[in-house]
Amino acid sequence: MGKDNSELLFSKEQVLTAQALKLYEQVIHYVNVRIDRGDWPADVKLPSVRSLAQELGVHRLTVFRAYQELKQQGRIYVKDKSGYYAHASSANAMKAFAACTKRSSANHIFHSESAYAADDPSVSAWRGMDGLTRVQSVNADFQFSKSLIDPSLLPNRYWGELMMQVFEKHPKVAATYSAVQGDAELRDAMAQHFSADKYFALSTDEVLITSGAQQAIDLISRSLIRTGDRVLIERPAYGPAMEIFRRQGARLTMTDIRPEGYDMDQIEWCMKTEKPRLFYMNPTFHNPTGFTVPDDQRKRLPELAERYGCLIVEDDSTYDISFGQRPPSPIFAYDISGSVVYIRSYSKYVAPGLRIAAVACRRQVMHSLLGVKALVDNGSPLLNQKLFLQYFQSSRMQQHLKKLCIALQIRKETMENSLAGSGWTWTSPAGGLNLWLQLPSTLQPNELLVKSIQESISFVPGDVFDPVGPEGQTHIRLSYSYANELQIKEGISALLRLSRTL
Amino acid sequence: MGKDNSELLFSKEQVLTAQALKLYEQVIHYVNVRIDRGDWPADVKLPSVRSLAQELGVHRLTVFRAYQELKQQGRIYVKDKSGYYAHASSANAMKAFAACTKRSSANHIFHSESAYAADDPSVSAWRGMDGLTRVQSVNADFQFSKSLIDPSLLPNRYWGELMMQVFEKHPKVAATYSAVQGDAELRDAMAQHFSADKYFALSTDEVLITSGAQQAIDLISRSLIRTGDRVLIERPAYGPAMEIFRRQGARLTMTDIRPEGYDMDQIEWCMKTEKPRLFYMNPTFHNPTGFTVPDDQRKRLPELAERYGCLIVEDDSTYDISFGQRPPSPIFAYDISGSVVYIRSYSKYVAPGLRIAAVACRRQVMHSLLGVKALVDNGSPLLNQKLFLQYFQSSRMQQHLKKLCIALQIRKETMENSLAGSGWTWTSPAGGLNLWLQLPSTLQPNELLVKSIQESISFVPGDVFDPVGPEGQTHIRLSYSYANELQIKEGISALLRLSRTL
Repeated sequence: MGKDNSELLFSKEQVLTAQALKLYEQVIHYVNVRIDRGDWPADVKLPSVRSLAQELGVHRLTVFRAYQELKQQGRIYVKDKSGYYAHASSANAMKAFAACTKRSSANHIFHSESAYAADDPSVSAWRGMDGLTRVQSVNADFQFSKSLIDPSLLPNRYWGELMMQVFEKHPKVAATYSAVQGDAELRDAMAQHFSADKYFALSTDEVLITSGAQQAIDLISRSLIRTGDRVLIERPAYGPAMEIFRRQGARLTMTDIRPEGYDMDQIEWCMKTEKPRLFYMNPTFHNPTGFTVPDDQRKRLPELAERYGCLIVEDDSTYDISFGQRPPSPIFAYDISGSVVYIRSYSKYVAPGLRIAAVACRRQVMHSLLGVKALVDNGSPLLNQKLFLQYFQSSRMQQHLKKLCIALQIRKETMENSLAGSGWTWTSPAGGLNLWLQLPSTLQPNELLVKSIQESISFVPGDVFDPVGPEGQTHIRLSYSYANELQIKEGISALLRLSRTL
Repeated sequence: MGKDNSELLFSKEQVLTAQALKLYEQVIHYVNVRIDRGDWPADVKLPSVRSLAQELGVHRLTVFRAYQELKQQGRIYVKDKSGYYAHASSANAMKAFAACTKRSSANHIFHSESAYAADDPSVSAWRGMDGLTRVQSVNADFQFSKSLIDPSLLPNRYWGELMMQVFEKHPKVAATYSAVQGDAELRDAMAQHFSADKYFALSTDEVLITSGAQQAIDLISRSLIRTGDRVLIERPAYGPAMEIFRRQGARLTMTDIRPEGYDMDQIEWCMKTEKPRLFYMNPTFHNPTGFTVPDDQRKRLPELAERYGCLIVEDDSTYDISFGQRPPSPIFAYDISGSVVYIRSYSKYVAPGLRIAAVACRRQVMHSLLGVKALVDNGSPLLNQKLFLQYFQSSRMQQHLKKLCIALQIRKETMENSLAGSGWTWTSPAGGLNLWLQLPSTLQPNELLVKSIQESISFVPGDVFDPVGPEGQTHIRLSYSYANELQIKEGISALLRLSRTL
């Protein structure tokens, strides 16, 4: 009896999830979890249909259907007749060029991975982020894989001076802890900035300072998501965000983002039927596509979120990097029910070395976030916050942003001109750091990547952002924000030359 | 059939855990999880023995036994005949003086908590950390609750100058991301420091830079612990650490720490029978007791850890704060099998505003930690690491530590002298920041706390560090590191005066 009881005893929470799912979907979820956890490493044979059916006490046809679907999603593959195997997203291409790169760290990651895949729950994190981590760790002369801003475009001269001002104002700043929520002065300044800029009214208590936007996403995931919760996310989407939600035990549902925005009916249908806990989105100069969700959809999204009890997480990391007129107001500005959490990264385009991002949200969500923030690092470093504040309040901030946007626009146009006549297609973005390009059907992104790494050209293959959808197999992301114009010209023409040899 | 299958389907992992447990222990675990998750808020009636027995499909006597044990542990309480209720650890005392403090943040936390207890998974974090969070957020004239160093004892003059040196060396430091593992220069310097100081030999690849020791504990917990894993921890123990492990789904087993160290037979027995995934310890100037684990036990612990496959997590945050001769070598120094992970906080007693800690561990664990660190913040801020390095390599570091230890020893002795003749008993610590005092049986820590907060004296009641054991009800922690000598003299005599009125 002990066994039966124990099974009942420990399955409660899971069962609640399970009952909401069709049986074959449960199998899909189960397989995904085992793969994510690294129990079933990539390229190692999965349990046979028969044995998994026995293990789970379901009919073989149920497992077969699950495997078929997972195959379609590109999560697993079939090796002739020998059985099913898990994909490591773009692992093969990565292996190919992990050999090319001389950087020991990349090699270390690569070699150690296989060694610990079986018993190491974190390997799935590496594997999920492989695409990005590996490709960005390559020392390329033509660096188009980093969606980061060329340090020489960032303010580097003033910091010493600003620092001295900080130490004059706050002699003990280096000796003092920050509040968990962040420095009140900085939160105050940001709240005022938003109000003044007519984005939305915000009180100091509604701002949380995090160590970069990535930490913000992680805090939200940890404080709001429980195993089995569904998370709605764009297709394509920022890879690390997908990984963060997966590791929290979320089941991802993807909804396409297009030049004209979302399919709102699809989103409503999904919120209605799948009841996602949250919708993580990057609606302004979306990474990787560069698309921007239009104003009418921005107005409607908070209503839907409220109606269906789904929290919108609006990651607006590159809102300020716009080339034409200012983008539509953040979705957060249209939220009257506390259904939107707003993430704004600042240090990204001012001082990445400081790692300062802000989360704006209403009281209840803030309370959840503070609980986790207190546990994970008990507050971001005070020194960075005071230093950033000094810059944020100076007139330099706005001047810098103006100049930065012009410089990036020039680089973008340089890249687009270099790509003219390539037969590659893309939608020209009105802001952000990347081009999302569709390759001719004859060209396979990961093949191209392996070749180009050998020529010291790096970019990110589409499957990092779209592991299951079709675009992952046909698209690549080229960042124009890190390389200078000369490098862009030379690099792109070399890349095109190379593509013609394939 | 669907339902049965789904229950089977999702209980696999849990069952493995469950089978290792007696049935009533499973019920205890289940109840703890529901309380920790906030499903069953404090002071709200728990399911009756009958209904929980039905819900879990176990005999009523099993649930009854579990409730009895939980009552004994102080986790739940019985209200006359009306049923069982969950305790919020020292929530009552906290409520009493949350009203006393004027700081809005504390009030905010306090008020919002009850409001969201039911639906907010993070509330358990707040509740678990209430003791610490709340008591430390009180503005007390006599601040004995902060196990932090008085900022006026920390170097405050040099930072501006050091910063200028950093900007000269690395003009683009503010514009540059750190590697996920941390700045190689800093890791190199720390590795050399350890080797030079004859602690242990370390390679640069075996050092990870984290944003404070707290983040280190969280990374270790997230990368190594799965739901149901058992974690061995000292009694009493650092509150936030317990909370971090709990939230990761760990089941805690506590082992006493005494002036003479651990009961090694008990530890071996526990490792053998309960197979803990890790043993989190703070063996040098332990917080809160100040005890130090002797050398012979330090030598034996890695052997046990290796033999029973238990990872030792050695949190050595205050190793450098010693009043007599140098403490015995870290346990990590005796580890030849990679069974020990070593956490050393540096910024704590140099520049808390920088939040710099280091984790030393061998390759496999490092690989796991990197996977999580990449997800949670993608690397600590580079600026802080470079600035700290500048200080770390200067001769000032060692001079500062010498002075600091002397200053803290004087404050400790001042506090001990002020306590002479109180009838309160303690073991005089050879280092660290705290006194762990046993009150006379007539004196109840939380009662004393409520009174003393009214007199603007703050300390931490024992149950924050020992929620289930006996010392929690009889001990308090007084930190001598934050208040100056005058405040210590006045505050302690006021506290003693006050205690006589109870």
